[in-house]
Amino acid sequence: MAIHPDCLEQLERIVGTSHFSSQREDLICYAYDATASLHVPDAVVFPATAQEVSRIMTLAASFRTPVIPRGGGSGMTGGALAVKGGIVVVFNRMNRIVEIDPDNLTARIQPGVITADFQHQVARQGLFYPPDPSSASFSTIGGNLAENAGGPKAVKYGVTRDYVLGLEAVLPTGEIIKTGVRTAKGVVGYDLTRLIVGSEGTLALITEATLKLLPMPESVMTLTVAFASMKTAARAVSQLIRSHVVPRTIEFMDNASICLAEEYLQVGLPVDADALLIMEVDGKRQEIDQLARTLEDRCRHLGAVSVNLAETEEQAQRLWQARKAISPALFKLAPHKINEDIVVPRSRVPDLVAKIDDLRRQTGLTMVAFGHAGDGNIHFNIMLDKSDRTALAKANRAVDTLFDYTLVLGGTISGEHGVGITKAPYFRKEVSHEAMTLMQRIKQAFDPLGLLNPGKIFPEVIA
Amino acid sequence: MAIHPDCLEQLERIVGTSHFSSQREDLICYAYDATASLHVPDAVVFPATAQEVSRIMTLAASFRTPVIPRGGGSGMTGGALAVKGGIVVVFNRMNRIVEIDPDNLTARIQPGVITADFQHQVARQGLFYPPDPSSASFSTIGGNLAENAGGPKAVKYGVTRDYVLGLEAVLPTGEIIKTGVRTAKGVVGYDLTRLIVGSEGTLALITEATLKLLPMPESVMTLTVAFASMKTAARAVSQLIRSHVVPRTIEFMDNASICLAEEYLQVGLPVDADALLIMEVDGKRQEIDQLARTLEDRCRHLGAVSVNLAETEEQAQRLWQARKAISPALFKLAPHKINEDIVVPRSRVPDLVAKIDDLRRQTGLTMVAFGHAGDGNIHFNIMLDKSDRTALAKANRAVDTLFDYTLVLGGTISGEHGVGITKAPYFRKEVSHEAMTLMQRIKQAFDPLGLLNPGKIFPEVIA
Repeated sequence: MAIHPDCLEQLERIVGTSHFSSQREDLICYAYDATASLHVPDAVVFPATAQEVSRIMTLAASFRTPVIPRGGGSGMTGGALAVKGGIVVVFNRMNRIVEIDPDNLTARIQPGVITADFQHQVARQGLFYPPDPSSASFSTIGGNLAENAGGPKAVKYGVTRDYVLGLEAVLPTGEIIKTGVRTAKGVVGYDLTRLIVGSEGTLALITEATLKLLPMPESVMTLTVAFASMKTAARAVSQLIRSHVVPRTIEFMDNASICLAEEYLQVGLPVDADALLIMEVDGKRQEIDQLARTLEDRCRHLGAVSVNLAETEEQAQRLWQARKAISPALFKLAPHKINEDIVVPRSRVPDLVAKIDDLRRQTGLTMVAFGHAGDGNIHFNIMLDKSDRTALAKANRAVDTLFDYTLVLGGTISGEHGVGITKAPYFRKEVSHEAMTLMQRIKQAFDPLGLLNPGKIFPEVIA
Repeated sequence: MAIHPDCLEQLERIVGTSHFSSQREDLICYAYDATASLHVPDAVVFPATAQEVSRIMTLAASFRTPVIPRGGGSGMTGGALAVKGGIVVVFNRMNRIVEIDPDNLTARIQPGVITADFQHQVARQGLFYPPDPSSASFSTIGGNLAENAGGPKAVKYGVTRDYVLGLEAVLPTGEIIKTGVRTAKGVVGYDLTRLIVGSEGTLALITEATLKLLPMPESVMTLTVAFASMKTAARAVSQLIRSHVVPRTIEFMDNASICLAEEYLQVGLPVDADALLIMEVDGKRQEIDQLARTLEDRCRHLGAVSVNLAETEEQAQRLWQARKAISPALFKLAPHKINEDIVVPRSRVPDLVAKIDDLRRQTGLTMVAFGHAGDGNIHFNIMLDKSDRTALAKANRAVDTLFDYTLVLGGTISGEHGVGITKAPYFRKEVSHEAMTLMQRIKQAFDPLGLLNPGKIFPEVIA
């Protein structure tokens, strides 16, 4: 269904000619994300204010045209794709840090700000915004809010949701609302804030957020700890946390990930280790050495083959570059990636790792696992050539098996990437019919015409 | 509207004769809460399982009878009161700690468990459940979840919402749903968990919760810090946090509160001080002395008249008993209390305190302020005899003025007590028409017949 020419004309008038396009060569630039599928919208607009967003939404409603909010376009599950056509609203012009308030440890910020830019700005005032998805240097706060992004520091500091105090947002019916508070506490009415956060752009268009900040930890130390087996590594994580040693980060790389990262950056990772943990501890300067040493001792006691402390800030940063390089570097192994983002209770990570080993043996497929072991959040990847029908069928069966097992272990099929379009077919595995129906009634309460980011989260055909 | 006899008969059959009553002398026991108003329900039931709760709700729906969930009955805003009659569902038989999982730092718990009992149970395993409302020794986890209870430790550790991973709940339409996860992360579908938490029992009846725990801090130290003026105290709090010294607790008492508490318990509080801060720091054993000393130095530098460290655990506990005694002891001043629970950004506490001084001078009324200064959350009380019409009118005008000023300062009219019935008339001061309408559509999505805890949160007549 093509968009009405009057709608295009009015859209152009709302944002101005230079902030609008319906030219295919422009639209292509806003048709993809990290899922590598292509859905070309009918128009793309770059609003400058909440008022413009409201007028766009109202216009779209009058023409029954879908609206798709878009941040950096780095989503892993298709949240920003115009799967039903319509108008893509790009927030990159609304990229102002409105206020940083060091007295109250809060900031007001527009959705188009790049997450890492925000982190750097607050750091200059001795402040700390912990949520840190691997995409932080190109993803936006708006996208992070929509997906409830996580990242390595979630072990100690939690996820994006835990740092949102309030929002300004445009409803699918066009109204601009404010939700939540600017204070540490607030319980007046329903928690619209946390309902909109993580709703993958299907309930409202976020136009401003009030975020909570922390004082910047004085000091950080990074360790790499190698293990001869993935099971030993996974058990070590569980034991560490049980014994009340909580690093802020416990990242996990399997042998394939280690080799990929090392090939990419030559940081001296132990390519013969079966599993590597990257850990960060933070705190006061005088405690941090002691803490790192305690951690080192415990890890050796728990079966580590080697423990290395990053000696300089630069060394630590190169380790993180290596960790963040895994995801893009995977394409060295095969042209296509099936990428999942499962979570199990921490103590069940050894079981999950054993299951992945089984699946690898049974299918003969290339599987790479890494992720946030401290949260039990494993990014599991199958690398393949999708034109190989046999391999693809095997891979899909393996994902299906792994999802079922994840749920048996008390886990969830998505820890931080959302459902979007890629996980929608599996949604019903985790969410009961009754809970899904309730969610759809909530969607209806926000978006009676079903125009905001349609085709996401819920399976299209309800079994 | 009296309840139908058939409904009563069937209710009795669902829970069993000994767990049901429609006798006035029994009903009276479930007709009040801390607001001191009386609303006698038509029946009271004490279910033992989620299935029984589901059958009660379904039955009530078929008879169009209101259902009111009830925990310890200690709510400050009327959340548990049967203002439209109907069936009060008391959760005190569903009081089992189902599981404490030290490996994954989680617990599964039924709603009728007393909060302090739960804290003691997890403490025996070296674990820590931080949310700590003053009512903890008689309020229930279910009530804490419904109201999103806070407490002194929120400064460092957050509120009840921050410790909920998932729920089992009965919808007003009778279905039993599971929400959220048992893991550290999870983003599959809308966040029903945090929508139900803080909804004051109007969206669902919580029948089980999966809660997050922390390792118990090794050591805690308690300090009392006296100031010659409330403004100096309030400024000191703001400065402390700005300089990155974050105690886990910063409680605030004005002179009237100090005198009341001292009269009640004789713990040696400085009755001539205009303001007292009670602070707790926690952490590792070897750091805590240093931290307390740093805090003491900073406070003296920031104008403290005296600083006292509790020497023993017993001393510290008596300080907290004194702090918790303020609220009930207020009735020594006058027969009635108007009690508000406002929050402003931390740095604006001095402005709020100055405003309260003005109001006290202008009205001549007895006003007592105490609360959680670290969060900017002040419990403001006017003590009066409500039969004195002039005093009551003055008091109501003072509350009105204070609410307006709170909102001007960027605050909220309720930090942890909820809206219930007592704050419903002020709801529209804080929440816009658009946001309220959206909340009411969400209520409708959960509860199409409007039977679960009716008459709460939203003002009855929409202006």
